[in-house]
Amino acid sequence: MKKHRVIFEPAGVTAEVNDGATLLEAAARAGAGLDSICGGSGICGKCRVLVKDGMPALSAPSDIEKKFISQEEGPVRLACESRVYGDVTVHVQPAGMISRKAARKVSVNLDPAVKKYSVKINPPSMQDMGRGDRERLIEALRAQHGISGLYMDFNVLKGLQKILRDGLWEVTASIWSGKEIIRLEPYVSGAAYGLAVDIGTTTVAAYLCDLCSGDVLDTFSKTNPQAIHGDDVMARITFAMTNPEGLSVMQGEIRDCINGIIGKTGLLPEDILDMTVVCNTVMHHIFLGIDPSGIGAAPFAHAVSRPLDVKARELGININESSYIHVLPAPSGFIGADSAGVLIALEPHNQDRKLLIIDVGTNGEILLGDRSGVYSASCATGPAFEGAQIKYGMRASAGAIERVWIDHDTKEPSIEIIGNARARGICGSGIIDAVAGLFRAGIIDKSGRLRLEPLRANGLPHTERLRLDANGRPEFVIAQKGQTETGSDITITQADVRAVQLAKAALYAGTRLLMRRMGIEKIDGIILAGAFGSYINKESALAIGMLPECAPENISAVGNAAGEGAALALLNVGKRKEAEREVLKLRHLEISTDPDFQEEFLAAMNIPHS
Amino acid sequence: MKKHRVIFEPAGVTAEVNDGATLLEAAARAGAGLDSICGGSGICGKCRVLVKDGMPALSAPSDIEKKFISQEEGPVRLACESRVYGDVTVHVQPAGMISRKAARKVSVNLDPAVKKYSVKINPPSMQDMGRGDRERLIEALRAQHGISGLYMDFNVLKGLQKILRDGLWEVTASIWSGKEIIRLEPYVSGAAYGLAVDIGTTTVAAYLCDLCSGDVLDTFSKTNPQAIHGDDVMARITFAMTNPEGLSVMQGEIRDCINGIIGKTGLLPEDILDMTVVCNTVMHHIFLGIDPSGIGAAPFAHAVSRPLDVKARELGININESSYIHVLPAPSGFIGADSAGVLIALEPHNQDRKLLIIDVGTNGEILLGDRSGVYSASCATGPAFEGAQIKYGMRASAGAIERVWIDHDTKEPSIEIIGNARARGICGSGIIDAVAGLFRAGIIDKSGRLRLEPLRANGLPHTERLRLDANGRPEFVIAQKGQTETGSDITITQADVRAVQLAKAALYAGTRLLMRRMGIEKIDGIILAGAFGSYINKESALAIGMLPECAPENISAVGNAAGEGAALALLNVGKRKEAEREVLKLRHLEISTDPDFQEEFLAAMNIPHS
Repeated sequence: MKKHRVIFEPAGVTAEVNDGATLLEAAARAGAGLDSICGGSGICGKCRVLVKDGMPALSAPSDIEKKFISQEEGPVRLACESRVYGDVTVHVQPAGMISRKAARKVSVNLDPAVKKYSVKINPPSMQDMGRGDRERLIEALRAQHGISGLYMDFNVLKGLQKILRDGLWEVTASIWSGKEIIRLEPYVSGAAYGLAVDIGTTTVAAYLCDLCSGDVLDTFSKTNPQAIHGDDVMARITFAMTNPEGLSVMQGEIRDCINGIIGKTGLLPEDILDMTVVCNTVMHHIFLGIDPSGIGAAPFAHAVSRPLDVKARELGININESSYIHVLPAPSGFIGADSAGVLIALEPHNQDRKLLIIDVGTNGEILLGDRSGVYSASCATGPAFEGAQIKYGMRASAGAIERVWIDHDTKEPSIEIIGNARARGICGSGIIDAVAGLFRAGIIDKSGRLRLEPLRANGLPHTERLRLDANGRPEFVIAQKGQTETGSDITITQADVRAVQLAKAALYAGTRLLMRRMGIEKIDGIILAGAFGSYINKESALAIGMLPECAPENISAVGNAAGEGAALALLNVGKRKEAEREVLKLRHLEISTDPDFQEEFLAAMNIPHS
Repeated sequence: MKKHRVIFEPAGVTAEVNDGATLLEAAARAGAGLDSICGGSGICGKCRVLVKDGMPALSAPSDIEKKFISQEEGPVRLACESRVYGDVTVHVQPAGMISRKAARKVSVNLDPAVKKYSVKINPPSMQDMGRGDRERLIEALRAQHGISGLYMDFNVLKGLQKILRDGLWEVTASIWSGKEIIRLEPYVSGAAYGLAVDIGTTTVAAYLCDLCSGDVLDTFSKTNPQAIHGDDVMARITFAMTNPEGLSVMQGEIRDCINGIIGKTGLLPEDILDMTVVCNTVMHHIFLGIDPSGIGAAPFAHAVSRPLDVKARELGININESSYIHVLPAPSGFIGADSAGVLIALEPHNQDRKLLIIDVGTNGEILLGDRSGVYSASCATGPAFEGAQIKYGMRASAGAIERVWIDHDTKEPSIEIIGNARARGICGSGIIDAVAGLFRAGIIDKSGRLRLEPLRANGLPHTERLRLDANGRPEFVIAQKGQTETGSDITITQADVRAVQLAKAALYAGTRLLMRRMGIEKIDGIILAGAFGSYINKESALAIGMLPECAPENISAVGNAAGEGAALALLNVGKRKEAEREVLKLRHLEISTDPDFQEEFLAAMNIPHS
């Protein structure tokens, strides 16, 4: 088959693809950092690329493209709709860098930490020599805006006199927390931007916000470059412990990653005046340059739980150097600032109903409670739900099987693949669907065993899809070679089913234990947070016993609630106080050391459970 | 005459001197940075050098040396007593680097900004996971020492966990202003040091203090390296304005100078936990990296008048990087933080008597008042009192004529020379003595004219010392060529007398104007502050009309009161508050624009005045 070369700017990466492949597939193969919210189904219109060279080598614009892209935009195409029939060079547009960790619309009263005030200052005179320019400015801000007790960042002080004169004694002051002047501009300026950052172990998501309007202007997503040192937080801790420069290397990587996102905002760094950060506690320590080793072993001691405000220049983050970076509180080594973000985004502490919030990432983090109190716990689910430790597991990107149904009678599966591509593997939501489907179709029993013999013995329809692998272990073919990119079958193995059982049992047992300790029998609602939660099929999750009993209509998914919490804290300082307050009230249950955990865990291993 | 070479370490400078010269003379010629408080009279015992090579080439130790130097000190000599009869290499001892800007004994209740607390912390446990190590430490400090609301320097936070573990959960915290943890040590440690720095336009003086005992452990003095850009503040401003890198060059010079002093304390930089700084407002701006241009022309606007606390690491000062540098308030472009230092050292605001404080440097700075209020003014005396703009003027170092008497009958002068050397020139105190002596002896009249003709016409004893110079202008020989190092006469010229008249008239007119504006007729006491004030002969100063009427017994000199104020502020935070409070209450009179100044100035030109 004919092969073509696709070059992606600005990353400068290249993919060789088959004739007729889409640009979205090429981007996934190249690691171009291009993603689409809708998974390539032509709904979101976000996977835009600017064609720099080779437009004739692409398919003609589709009707879907015509709907999203106006003539004025020039040679812009949707990557999911454009098929490649020759060599081509494209530039990924900022809007196309959104990953599946996408922002919900943020709704909050606008009250940011940084506000701008334009002010007229009396010029110095021989009659007013007892005050410096700084004192004249501060007095003018008091008189004209009622702000008292102000101080001034030292770097702002150094440039103060020139700006006052350039501005002819009328300037705009950016004031942080009503306390500190962090910027002066020699004209009337209303523009102020902030960045809310969610540092995930795998993905870094960021929301660019307008601090004057409260709008989320753009969202960004990049792979956490620390991933080369290992997929999970333990691998990062190990890297820090075993390499003398490990911590500083990883801190540099996340710093460069965030600075790369800042570069892509198209704004001048000095116009970004605030930043909030959420992340798990290991990412938190690495971002701040604090050795995370203590979190790696009992008693899992972390350095700091309260929120921090650190000058951007102390962290080498390329926003305005005098501005602060607000890191949300990290209550423990297990419950991080990301949970603080989830707390203020979903506000279980303000609910009358008993709400269970599950943030499934590499670990499962649980919040459970209502206005009478919220408990937290962390469940060692492992990375199975993210597609790791699964034979054909992969992340939720183009080529991943994300939906699976298995016909009860014919045992034939139907699948949906991200990006309308050939199947390359199966992602977390697909694995849960597959295990639920196999169970419903009677192919696995409640212990999780693939029932090769009984199927045949009971005269049920023979399916070629259930078979023994080269080592004589049963496996089920979820996508046949004709449907896959490699030309080999993609299967669910017995080990895959076991991995899912272990992960869901950890989550379920953790939830049950939390309910037991709180003395509650019934949950009123479940919210699935995190990217994974948005794509999971809740009926499948209930079918395998991953979630406690709850009416499906009371189960919802909210996407990246942690990142949304960061954005809320960016736009409203009250949310920062709420995070600090509620995190202190949070009661943490340490599941792994609870004497009843083993019993709950074993009971939860069955499908759905015992 | 035989010549010998003397090498001075650590400066690495060399002097060629005549057979029998003292090491102190050699040091002055070499610019070795060696000075003696007593001016080489064998009283202070400070001009110590370690003889590295050539001991047999020096005179035998004198009785004075034996009094000051014990046998245990090894080959240590007093430079003022050791005469050179061959080549020699010596190392200037730290104690010998003290300049005439020396510390008085500081007496103040000990209440420094930085205090140390040893504290035991509960180790982390699985039962206490909701707090970080930082929170456990802060709680322990609250419980064991009653300090609440603490926060922690970000760099301390980064090293926190290792220190707690190295210290087996017992550490010493250094706390700044009862608010911020700026250091942790993994053991019980009581040692804490601070440095009080007086950045003079010419000389940088520093006082190393023990923050636990309140003792001044050592004093240091170095030439301000910015002097190469000009002697006075206007020259420094010009250098900053005319060179794109001028400000940063001069900031680097003063930073390196202070870091050099820190290097000579013999302490580890991290053990120095606090610093206070006094200086005039131009030095203040340059030290902080603020463009001083505004101070150079009307309306003489300065950037900031309130005190500042700046992290040492922001200024590149090599004390503990998390500690703060407290810069005393600089009320105006003319009245600097040095005046704030003088205020808290001499406390005119707490006096019942009307006190006049004159700090004579390149400018004359005046404070006048009592507990009902203190006024300040700055008089443009110019540098004549420092020996500049005087034909044979020089700084007060070895070879300078510092005392002059003129016999009324014979018109013959007697002189005293610093360092028992041959005369090289005349310093400020000598010039004032000389003009006073010439006036008393009738050699100059009250208009300041050297009376060549009347002396002869009146049949008064002819003196060869009064003569016409090559340009036909009168001059008076103060030291004949046999007494001088160059072998040429040292004279006081008509222009020198005029320069002294202008300087003293500026000071006197400023004082008179201040008295007029305050409505007072009589001053109860005068304090002369600054190095120059300590060496001035008060009768001479009264005789030429430099000072307002005051009984000589009520005139005193206190040395470097500004530097003493810095040391007081280092040892007692209440003195910082006092400086801030009193500086705000200070009423400044801008003399140069006062409509009555010209009248007062002209009247003050006469000797003593009209």
